[in-house]
Amino acid sequence: MPSGNAVIGQSGGPTAVINQSLVGVVEGLRAEADFDGKILGAHHAVAGIVKNDYLDLTDTPQDVLDRVAETPSSALGSSRDKPDDAYCQRIFESFEKQDVRYFFYAGGNDSSDTCRIIAEKAQAKGYDLKAFHVPKTIDNDLPVNDHTPGFGSAAKFVAQAFMGDNLDNAALPGIKINIVMGRHAGFLTAASMLGRRDGTSDGPHLVYVPEASFSEDKFLADVERVYTKLGRCLIAVSEGIHDQDGTPMMVRLQDEVEKDSHGNVQLSGSGALGDLLSDLIKTKLGDKLKKKLRVRADTFGYLQRSFVGCASPVDQAEAREAGKKAVEAAFHSERPSGSIAIVRTSDAPYTVEYRTIDISEVAAQTRHLDEKYIVDGCDIDASFKVYLAPIVGDLPAIETLV
Amino acid sequence: MPSGNAVIGQSGGPTAVINQSLVGVVEGLRAEADFDGKILGAHHAVAGIVKNDYLDLTDTPQDVLDRVAETPSSALGSSRDKPDDAYCQRIFESFEKQDVRYFFYAGGNDSSDTCRIIAEKAQAKGYDLKAFHVPKTIDNDLPVNDHTPGFGSAAKFVAQAFMGDNLDNAALPGIKINIVMGRHAGFLTAASMLGRRDGTSDGPHLVYVPEASFSEDKFLADVERVYTKLGRCLIAVSEGIHDQDGTPMMVRLQDEVEKDSHGNVQLSGSGALGDLLSDLIKTKLGDKLKKKLRVRADTFGYLQRSFVGCASPVDQAEAREAGKKAVEAAFHSERPSGSIAIVRTSDAPYTVEYRTIDISEVAAQTRHLDEKYIVDGCDIDASFKVYLAPIVGDLPAIETLV
Repeated sequence: MPSGNAVIGQSGGPTAVINQSLVGVVEGLRAEADFDGKILGAHHAVAGIVKNDYLDLTDTPQDVLDRVAETPSSALGSSRDKPDDAYCQRIFESFEKQDVRYFFYAGGNDSSDTCRIIAEKAQAKGYDLKAFHVPKTIDNDLPVNDHTPGFGSAAKFVAQAFMGDNLDNAALPGIKINIVMGRHAGFLTAASMLGRRDGTSDGPHLVYVPEASFSEDKFLADVERVYTKLGRCLIAVSEGIHDQDGTPMMVRLQDEVEKDSHGNVQLSGSGALGDLLSDLIKTKLGDKLKKKLRVRADTFGYLQRSFVGCASPVDQAEAREAGKKAVEAAFHSERPSGSIAIVRTSDAPYTVEYRTIDISEVAAQTRHLDEKYIVDGCDIDASFKVYLAPIVGDLPAIETLV
Repeated sequence: MPSGNAVIGQSGGPTAVINQSLVGVVEGLRAEADFDGKILGAHHAVAGIVKNDYLDLTDTPQDVLDRVAETPSSALGSSRDKPDDAYCQRIFESFEKQDVRYFFYAGGNDSSDTCRIIAEKAQAKGYDLKAFHVPKTIDNDLPVNDHTPGFGSAAKFVAQAFMGDNLDNAALPGIKINIVMGRHAGFLTAASMLGRRDGTSDGPHLVYVPEASFSEDKFLADVERVYTKLGRCLIAVSEGIHDQDGTPMMVRLQDEVEKDSHGNVQLSGSGALGDLLSDLIKTKLGDKLKKKLRVRADTFGYLQRSFVGCASPVDQAEAREAGKKAVEAAFHSERPSGSIAIVRTSDAPYTVEYRTIDISEVAAQTRHLDEKYIVDGCDIDASFKVYLAPIVGDLPAIETLV
């Protein structure tokens, strides 16, 4: 094993459990008999590395680490920089200066790609470096992984939000749209149905994911069908929905709605897609039904990844373990680099194993929601709960009278 | 005491604890030696009453009630109807038909006014009716009350959301706006600062409430000052902010404004205000600083009142007690009608008492955030925590490294 120091970075969008992975890596290194170097946290990921901006975590007390682990967001700070050759050169200069021989990088697709580039540059330069990626993304779209740390907690937030909003929508009936994160993958939007109780009229009644192309006509027909039957309609929509040509609906609806509606629609903000769909229903379906429809739209936004007090215990434990496994792989496998993948081995009882895979298997790639879960382009099959429930853990119990 | 049946209704926007009040009334009636009538739940409030649409809760098992109490939203269904004379006539016809002699109505300003109108009509007609209002509103704007059931839980949601979003904003710095509910009163928006830790640069860094008039120029100067100092800025904005002429910023934005039956402008259920403010910063401040600013806006929307799993235990207990006190007042005071008010008797230890007051003291009136808490029109003083903390209860602990 090379002797030297270790750097840990947290990259991309924060999650509720990425600090668990950070602490898992620190704990793994402390438990490693072959490691006696310093443990350095990269302040704002690669952006901090190139500035030699590190936080020394070598002696951070365990009780502080335990509390950090329970805290959402990236305690080291994050970055969305994508290193090019010149950037990588500066990373190596920093690593050489700090005698860094172990690099652990928690993040999603883009971040794993960053880790891959650095690992390759190290090999090309003959610089002895172990570079390991720790999976993280609320989008749940990393290949090989059954699911990724961060997703379970974000899914818990989305499920609890929809459980409550379904009750709200039942109390004051109307048409309600909630926009959920997930640019290319519909896992998080699909999580909206987790709290739906069997044999009830619980919403969401319609669920639109990016894996099914979106058509306005079908959307309006779907809403009309549900609304006519139930007198209300709760709708989950992924921010990434697009038409069959791949054009995001945000772009397409802009033209449609500006042609059809009288108001000025703000487009350059996070509430825009919900407001556009809301306008579409008010004008087109309202005209058809000759009725002033009560339509509202909320966009869940950053709360999905940052809300405190809503983490999934399973997600927390797995994120921590993934950090430890990355250290184990760095010290006890022949690989100079790799990524940790969470693979499910059983649904009931729920069990997983952690595999070390090539970074290239996850880097800059996207996994999608299996189409077997998508019903008629506008709903998610109940079988998705078998997949999702163990990752999210228990939801609060609810009881209704009507 | 008149013998006969009792009706309970839940009116206006649902909250996390309005079902506690419902169950408190049911429990109060069951404990009342002088009452042996039926306990009827008005399905969708007054809208159900005029249709003789009641749920019989007389024998609903206690374990069901306990679970309903823990469930957000209005289990009986709600309504925003505001009864006029003809409507009241239909209410009485229904009450006479059902031999209703006790009416308990949980709701906010508008709902207490409904209760008042019904009580007055009953007196005028010589119909023997006890009509009591149970306070409820996340806006916390009922006069006489120190605070209202529903507010503590909504404030807990807002505080936890800002705690998380502050960490997110620190990890990936930028300018972030969060729009919080509160048409006329800034209590809920002010709650954004509850999780701010002393001696840190925690956000929200700017807080705008409807009690201070909003100016675009001052807003931009405020944001510039914070952003220049910290490299980031987290902003809490009430949906009800308005200019010095009293014109809501939303009205300036929208050509067409939806109005509900109470003449209220639709402020919620749209991301438009956040997007407007976001655009304002990007263009005007971006131009001034000659910089492409990272600006995002989220609108918390209905999650604030409906999210499951985030209720304040104090709020839950008080909402239940307020329901019981309404029954007590109906049976053991001389009043034909009244409202229950929660009055604080001590900050530390936190104690309250429940007073029975005239409905006219709360009906259709609005209480505002005391201006002593408002700092320079753009922040909330730390002393607000003395008021707020006991109502919200413990927040999740967080720990940071930077």
